[in-house]
Amino acid sequence: MNDRLDITQYMNGVGQAARTAATAMAKADTKAKNNTLLALARLLREQTEALQVDNAKDISAAEGAGLAAPMVDRLRLTPKVLATVAEGCEQLAAMPDPIGEITGVKRRPTGISVGQMRVPLGVFGMIYESRPNVTIEAASLAIKSGNACILRGGSEAIHSNLALWKLVQQALTEAGLPATAVQLVETTDRAAVGRLIAMPEYVDVIIPRGGKGLIERISAEAKVPVIKHLDGNCHTYVDAEVDIEQALVVTDNAKTQKYSPCNATESLLVHAASAAAFLPRIGAIFATKGVEMRCDSTAKVILSQVAGAQLVDASEEDWSTEYLAPIISIKVVKDLDEAIAHINKYGSHHTEAILTTNHPNAMRFIREVDSSSVMINASTRFADGFEYGLGAEIGISTDKFHARGPVGLEGLTSMKWVVLGDGQVRG
Amino acid sequence: MNDRLDITQYMNGVGQAARTAATAMAKADTKAKNNTLLALARLLREQTEALQVDNAKDISAAEGAGLAAPMVDRLRLTPKVLATVAEGCEQLAAMPDPIGEITGVKRRPTGISVGQMRVPLGVFGMIYESRPNVTIEAASLAIKSGNACILRGGSEAIHSNLALWKLVQQALTEAGLPATAVQLVETTDRAAVGRLIAMPEYVDVIIPRGGKGLIERISAEAKVPVIKHLDGNCHTYVDAEVDIEQALVVTDNAKTQKYSPCNATESLLVHAASAAAFLPRIGAIFATKGVEMRCDSTAKVILSQVAGAQLVDASEEDWSTEYLAPIISIKVVKDLDEAIAHINKYGSHHTEAILTTNHPNAMRFIREVDSSSVMINASTRFADGFEYGLGAEIGISTDKFHARGPVGLEGLTSMKWVVLGDGQVRG
Repeated sequence: MNDRLDITQYMNGVGQAARTAATAMAKADTKAKNNTLLALARLLREQTEALQVDNAKDISAAEGAGLAAPMVDRLRLTPKVLATVAEGCEQLAAMPDPIGEITGVKRRPTGISVGQMRVPLGVFGMIYESRPNVTIEAASLAIKSGNACILRGGSEAIHSNLALWKLVQQALTEAGLPATAVQLVETTDRAAVGRLIAMPEYVDVIIPRGGKGLIERISAEAKVPVIKHLDGNCHTYVDAEVDIEQALVVTDNAKTQKYSPCNATESLLVHAASAAAFLPRIGAIFATKGVEMRCDSTAKVILSQVAGAQLVDASEEDWSTEYLAPIISIKVVKDLDEAIAHINKYGSHHTEAILTTNHPNAMRFIREVDSSSVMINASTRFADGFEYGLGAEIGISTDKFHARGPVGLEGLTSMKWVVLGDGQVRG
Repeated sequence: MNDRLDITQYMNGVGQAARTAATAMAKADTKAKNNTLLALARLLREQTEALQVDNAKDISAAEGAGLAAPMVDRLRLTPKVLATVAEGCEQLAAMPDPIGEITGVKRRPTGISVGQMRVPLGVFGMIYESRPNVTIEAASLAIKSGNACILRGGSEAIHSNLALWKLVQQALTEAGLPATAVQLVETTDRAAVGRLIAMPEYVDVIIPRGGKGLIERISAEAKVPVIKHLDGNCHTYVDAEVDIEQALVVTDNAKTQKYSPCNATESLLVHAASAAAFLPRIGAIFATKGVEMRCDSTAKVILSQVAGAQLVDASEEDWSTEYLAPIISIKVVKDLDEAIAHINKYGSHHTEAILTTNHPNAMRFIREVDSSSVMINASTRFADGFEYGLGAEIGISTDKFHARGPVGLEGLTSMKWVVLGDGQVRG
């Protein structure tokens, strides 16, 4: 598989097999799908030691290549990581089957009844980096949602991914489902990605997970829809009428509970009427935790009284920056209108929260802020498929089309129209 | 606006204005939106004569250019056409506002409540040919759904479209909404289309309406999602256990009630057990109506007894052809499996019907046939936004992503997540 022709042939074969498997998966029994997930959980537990042997190959290659320690850590299939993904499979097995649900059936004046039935999308392609547990997460979501999938993991995790994939195939076979329902691209040649995202005849949607560069490149070149997750430049807005004690706890959590997730707050907006009471106290918390504050002039004046505060003048660029680090931008706004306008202009349409006791303001905020998650008096860190009760999350969409925000099983499905008649014709 | 730079500048201006108007439309009162629709209906009635003067310019230009009579007819804004679109606006005004609906709010173990709120997509671009009434249909759907839209009609209807657009702007202004919520591309330069489909910063989705060539070209070149409607190669399948009298009425209607719509049946599949009883009788009806029958060998033998039947041997290509004409392909299948496999292989995933009295077969058909509309004992001609109760239809999607089948107001919306808390933080 060293030249382009071979890659194209190979990927076409993978695509054809996926399309065929998708037909079988779409009509698979709920029981067969759940049995697959339970078998997979069992195999992951039984094979924990063997998986670590394969995983060690990736780890030593990464260390040999001089990868940074946090990057190497993301590759590790520890017994704890494997137990967590096994548990995830069991949780999915316990969830209701989304496929076949018929909703909204209504009788029309012509006598026909019209409703909608939930069906799988067909075939999805998943492109991801580093963490090999994504292989199991994506495979298990595909199985439960009755889709086929084609997985393309990072070359740095290839041994781990191949070993995990073998277990997925074994679980599918045990339960009487086609092993080709989940395929892993076995070559690390980059041309395979180029082909994967450009075969609408075999692939219905691409889900990339990784850095912004990867996602932008895939979106630009894809010939099929992409469920894409770009920046999470999330805002917390502290309103004029607010429970200050609660706002301190929520804002602290939204920023500092973890710095790296996309749903961490990156920008704090404070109503002028609350600034004097709120800012010095949250500033003191941030100072203690070593969080750098990039401030507009008003916020800087107020925060300059805080001992040990790391204050920096915010640049225009700061307002649209996702730091993923102990840094936060802070701005004092004159009213709710300015807060909403600022968020809609500089935000990334991911997750924003208002902290307020004023009901009309709360309602205006959730209506007018154009983000995939809008929150009242809660930490932006809740924007997550598990926290929302989706059971699992294949990604977070920052688009409006199809799925928006955390994408679970339903995001991998579509609604078709069902018409029930007894001989009606159109007049 | 004769060179490319000017077109780009012009379209960027249109895009920016649309994006700004979309923010105002997203939070517009239901009353203001409905008042706009009612004002538009009134203006269409008041200005019927003036509109016909502008329309006459397009008609005479088309006749001068030697356009075929049916093409010229599609341009005509008769008083009847205008009355129908005015009535459509009033019907939309009477419908519930889709925007702001909050559904599925559930309490999570953490104490937050999570649900979804329906919001507009933002800005849609509509590209269409001939019929100027689409200008009003698209504008009225944009207004009701709280979106802004950019309309690009065919050059052959430019005078009619400009005149209609003026009324839309007047209605928006009367109701206190931004006139820029609905914009018409005023140039007929084709470069404007190229720019319209490639500015994701201003346009969220493109809806093309027209021939397959237009839609394929736009889909290939667009940098934003496209709600596309390609072929309607619809099937009616007559099962082994069937009410023959009913099947004759439904099949006749599905094929011959109108030949040009995308939801007309183009291919008839008949179970071998029903062929002898059903085929000669439907063949006689088709023969009377001058419908050419392109048959597989089994069907041809049975139909050769029908007086006056125009029988042709079906080629492989016939099975995937949308005729939009008094032609139908006919095949005898040995069982339901063959029927489903044939439809999924050769069909266009638009609309298919099973005619049967067997319940398990009916359920298998609607589950396993991968089409945007699946029907039991009803004419495929029902696949239509009005017939389904959507109130209006901006198009029919043959894709699975986002909207599938007839697209009404809901297809122009998205669901964002809403989190209601009282100070919850993530642990």
